[in-house]
Amino acid sequence: MNGTCRLKAALATELPRIEAALAEAVASLPPPVIPVARHILEAGGKRLRPLLTLTFARLFDPAGADCRRLAITLELLHAATLLHDDVLDNALTRRNRAAAHTVFDAAAVILGGDALLSHANAIVAEYGDTRLTRCFSEATSRTAAGEILEIAFRGRTDISTEDYEEMARGKTAWLIRAACLMGALAAGAGDDGLRAAADYGENLGMAFQMVDDALDFAPAEITGKPTGGDVREGKFTPPLRLYRESLDAAERAAFDAAFAGGMMGEAEAAVIAERIRRAGYDNLTRLDAQRCLDRALAALELLPDGPQRSLLREICAAVRERKK
Amino acid sequence: MNGTCRLKAALATELPRIEAALAEAVASLPPPVIPVARHILEAGGKRLRPLLTLTFARLFDPAGADCRRLAITLELLHAATLLHDDVLDNALTRRNRAAAHTVFDAAAVILGGDALLSHANAIVAEYGDTRLTRCFSEATSRTAAGEILEIAFRGRTDISTEDYEEMARGKTAWLIRAACLMGALAAGAGDDGLRAAADYGENLGMAFQMVDDALDFAPAEITGKPTGGDVREGKFTPPLRLYRESLDAAERAAFDAAFAGGMMGEAEAAVIAERIRRAGYDNLTRLDAQRCLDRALAALELLPDGPQRSLLREICAAVRERKK
Repeated sequence: MNGTCRLKAALATELPRIEAALAEAVASLPPPVIPVARHILEAGGKRLRPLLTLTFARLFDPAGADCRRLAITLELLHAATLLHDDVLDNALTRRNRAAAHTVFDAAAVILGGDALLSHANAIVAEYGDTRLTRCFSEATSRTAAGEILEIAFRGRTDISTEDYEEMARGKTAWLIRAACLMGALAAGAGDDGLRAAADYGENLGMAFQMVDDALDFAPAEITGKPTGGDVREGKFTPPLRLYRESLDAAERAAFDAAFAGGMMGEAEAAVIAERIRRAGYDNLTRLDAQRCLDRALAALELLPDGPQRSLLREICAAVRERKK
Repeated sequence: MNGTCRLKAALATELPRIEAALAEAVASLPPPVIPVARHILEAGGKRLRPLLTLTFARLFDPAGADCRRLAITLELLHAATLLHDDVLDNALTRRNRAAAHTVFDAAAVILGGDALLSHANAIVAEYGDTRLTRCFSEATSRTAAGEILEIAFRGRTDISTEDYEEMARGKTAWLIRAACLMGALAAGAGDDGLRAAADYGENLGMAFQMVDDALDFAPAEITGKPTGGDVREGKFTPPLRLYRESLDAAERAAFDAAFAGGMMGEAEAAVIAERIRRAGYDNLTRLDAQRCLDRALAALELLPDGPQRSLLREICAAVRERKK
């Protein structure tokens, strides 16, 4: 199989099983939060994390036991994060702008997130392997730390590239790293294999975030969501850094003030997005992402060849080509 | 030592160590959430949970290793719960009443709770004992489930005693049970010992919640907080059930409507609290709590005698006598 064929075939086989395991997990939650959990999980998602766990498990142990339940735990953690994010964004929006918000049951959303995270924890604990537990709990801590940094950085343009990377590593990459590592751990991989799985995952995750940052400036017609959301939300991503560096002193001061005050509207964000695309700053960020993907691909070279490794290569290509 | 002497001596010795371990845990959190974590943990608290873990660990293994870090994990979980509760109460209040709220940084509070919980998880994982991990993750799930029930029950008077007990067991008792059980597990207790530790903890926890429910109707001069908070918040606790059962049909319908609508003010709550005290419904609830404490004391009889067992008896007495 060539191109993205293997990925499509893997998704066709695995997705229904992953969805079934997710539905089963949701059904076992306390009844009052089931609708909110279902809502966030049925909103879709690429199920990249469970697919990575399953692929690494099979790569190291093709005849190994089914680990679908383990594979969904990081997706449950990811969903919990999204739920808490919803409340956070709501809170921040409420603080920065006067506009009242639509009806939003914060209680169900916060507790729904807590329940999803607790349940994911309990599933990992079932496996009775302390390395899995440690890996999962580290992913939880790192993700929380990354999100905390993201909020602390909001509206600031004095964030160094290293700060950004630390935030992105926590917020996005660590969870994807853990998805790969947990599959390898469950399959009994040796130290070299574990290291390669972690390297692949961390670099894939960093690339995923950078492509996301670039896509934020794509036209709304292509992505289906308003362009420049990150500018409006005060997130100083790589394309925005490049844009800001291109401004003269007066423009930069005006940009900083509007950005810090959360005063960018959709129209201003659209203008900035167009300038970013015209100057190619989004594509420069995609080039940085490619450098991460190269490291991910290099990590794969240390792993046994076969269909799983090819699939992991295709996943890199899919992240690179992502259009929305 | 007699009376509450042993408890006082234990607290004098252990509290500074527990506080030091808590301070160390807080210092290792992501910097932006340290102030919120410090705020909730420095607001005090009886540190009942860490004391129980330490006491059970010593009861089963007097010469055992220090397990202070393990002992604080359930206090960190408890603090995380309190933080999320703050946001929930805020959200609920906002929904039920028109009054605007004081400045409240929901983002820091939600993420602070997430960070505390993640960190507690990571500490438990360090111990490399899957039984501890399972116990902790079950405590997390059960606590979340109990809180979800509590919210789902708000304003309702058709909650059965069994429903109330399920909610209280989740919201309060399971965490106290886990504190006892984790100490026993860390000290290598056998099956009978583990069962007795769990029984003691669960019954102590149920008693703790019932005494809390009774205390909610004590005069503000004694407890230092407005009386009848539970009526105003729509929590149908045992003293309130007894009060409602004493009403005639018309009074009951009026009560139900005001309770369901979240329309009880401080004045109405104070009137109901006074009636409850006069009829002795708070003391009847304390009697039910005593029945739980009797079961906790019976569980202790199965454990080795010595200073730790005496201390655990004194803790029962302290819960029974609690005045605020």
